[in-house]
Amino acid sequence: MKTLGDIGEDELIRRVVRLVPTGLGEGEAPGDDCSVVDSGGDRLLLLKTDALVEGVHYEKSADPEAVGWKAVARVFSDFAAMGGVGERFMVTLALPGATELKWVEALYDGMGKCLREFGATLAGGETCRVPEASAAVISISATGSVKRGQAVLRSGGKIGDEIWVTGKLGGSLSGKHLSFFPRVKEGRWLAENTGITAMMDLSDGLAKDLPRLAEASGCGFEIRRDAVPRNLGCTLEQALGDGEDFELLFTVPAGEKIEEAWNVKFPELGVSRFGVLTALGEGEKLSGGWDHFGA
Amino acid sequence: MKTLGDIGEDELIRRVVRLVPTGLGEGEAPGDDCSVVDSGGDRLLLLKTDALVEGVHYEKSADPEAVGWKAVARVFSDFAAMGGVGERFMVTLALPGATELKWVEALYDGMGKCLREFGATLAGGETCRVPEASAAVISISATGSVKRGQAVLRSGGKIGDEIWVTGKLGGSLSGKHLSFFPRVKEGRWLAENTGITAMMDLSDGLAKDLPRLAEASGCGFEIRRDAVPRNLGCTLEQALGDGEDFELLFTVPAGEKIEEAWNVKFPELGVSRFGVLTALGEGEKLSGGWDHFGA
Repeated sequence: MKTLGDIGEDELIRRVVRLVPTGLGEGEAPGDDCSVVDSGGDRLLLLKTDALVEGVHYEKSADPEAVGWKAVARVFSDFAAMGGVGERFMVTLALPGATELKWVEALYDGMGKCLREFGATLAGGETCRVPEASAAVISISATGSVKRGQAVLRSGGKIGDEIWVTGKLGGSLSGKHLSFFPRVKEGRWLAENTGITAMMDLSDGLAKDLPRLAEASGCGFEIRRDAVPRNLGCTLEQALGDGEDFELLFTVPAGEKIEEAWNVKFPELGVSRFGVLTALGEGEKLSGGWDHFGA
Repeated sequence: MKTLGDIGEDELIRRVVRLVPTGLGEGEAPGDDCSVVDSGGDRLLLLKTDALVEGVHYEKSADPEAVGWKAVARVFSDFAAMGGVGERFMVTLALPGATELKWVEALYDGMGKCLREFGATLAGGETCRVPEASAAVISISATGSVKRGQAVLRSGGKIGDEIWVTGKLGGSLSGKHLSFFPRVKEGRWLAENTGITAMMDLSDGLAKDLPRLAEASGCGFEIRRDAVPRNLGCTLEQALGDGEDFELLFTVPAGEKIEEAWNVKFPELGVSRFGVLTALGEGEKLSGGWDHFGA
């Protein structure tokens, strides 16, 4: 019998999505950072769900306020990756009954800080008990929106588009993954001010996420390894594979200059061009990165 | 140190909601079956999140297709309880890596059946790994909508309003909880054709849920125990406390006759009047029902 560990996350999603009815609109079916829903009007509705698991995405000993910040910030990062903003959040907590009330209150404090920072609200939630030996699960779902015409999908990249990334990569495991600042302003700026063709946020590592963006765009890719921006003390392997960078990976048409305007707008956060989209089947392969069910 | 088991679910929600920003619109803050969002237009947006935990809401040995149906049907039931309909669903699965692929596919088959039955689609999802000894968690979130002016909150009941319920109560533990049919058509009919003042669905048992509806309406309540409709072979205690009935509990102004039109429209599903809303602090108390963190 095949298990989830045998096939990995991407293959699992491909298989199960065939079993259920999905929407027909562009970007409405599963596969992007958010689902895009067109209900008329000048803004499109964005939908997102995400989860943190104790012992997988955070350690039991981690500061619960930081865990709460992270749970919500991850979702803002997905809205940012569409060129949009988050608006209304729902929190589902599955916790053992022996969980301390203080822990849950600190978790909500952290979620509240992140919601206030980026101007969104809590619209609902659910709390339920898991058996005492089970890991806690924090599931966040949210609605957001993006101006019509500005939603940036993973699938819009074209052969020859250049591949860019915000900030620097690698080193999330040393604690940065709990306190990162999602690139909300940056994602909106890119959608409004550049010829951006495709975007996603880096959650599973460049080695895992760049192939996803290229595949969604029907392309291959080539990168210059020495141009991948790395955090201080990180090897190339860490920059490609640590995951949880929560920087924005995006493509723009070849030759478009964005550094100058970027550096005026975001002087403290770099932006780097490090590769190009190729024809499908050409280019190179990357291995590594985070698979939720991988060995 | 206080734990969640010490304080219970309702007290937990009261405490944590104070720690985060919430919306200002009527029905937008947490507390109802769904959150109601007014973005203009002739329909209001409804938001809902809900979760099933292995070993709590279903047994590991349960038919995964039935579990998938139940996970989605519970959320349709919440939309029904607002007088609305479900539209776009997101599924978050937190599963051990050793979970069999066949199990997950059967789960999605069941979710797909329920989505098709009630005319909604899957708009996104997330799968993540929990440690091998942990219980699986299936978290569903969804958007829906309700016609402006027809959203039925828990808080609209008035002193003297009569208390009604659809169908019969009790006995969920004998398996019915996996195959129930959410009262979607019935909820819409009530919202469109009666003077209904408050409504919710019965998930934790009448003994737990009726006090919630009365409290949200700023009222007490009195019931006639012999008028509580029971499933065959169920005691009054089971009808009050088993939970997971997924029938609709609602109030209408005193003297309003709804049985005749109801019986024409829904000849196979009864509707019963069994109590009245009283002034706050008067009336009676009920004990029992399901508390997610109770002892």
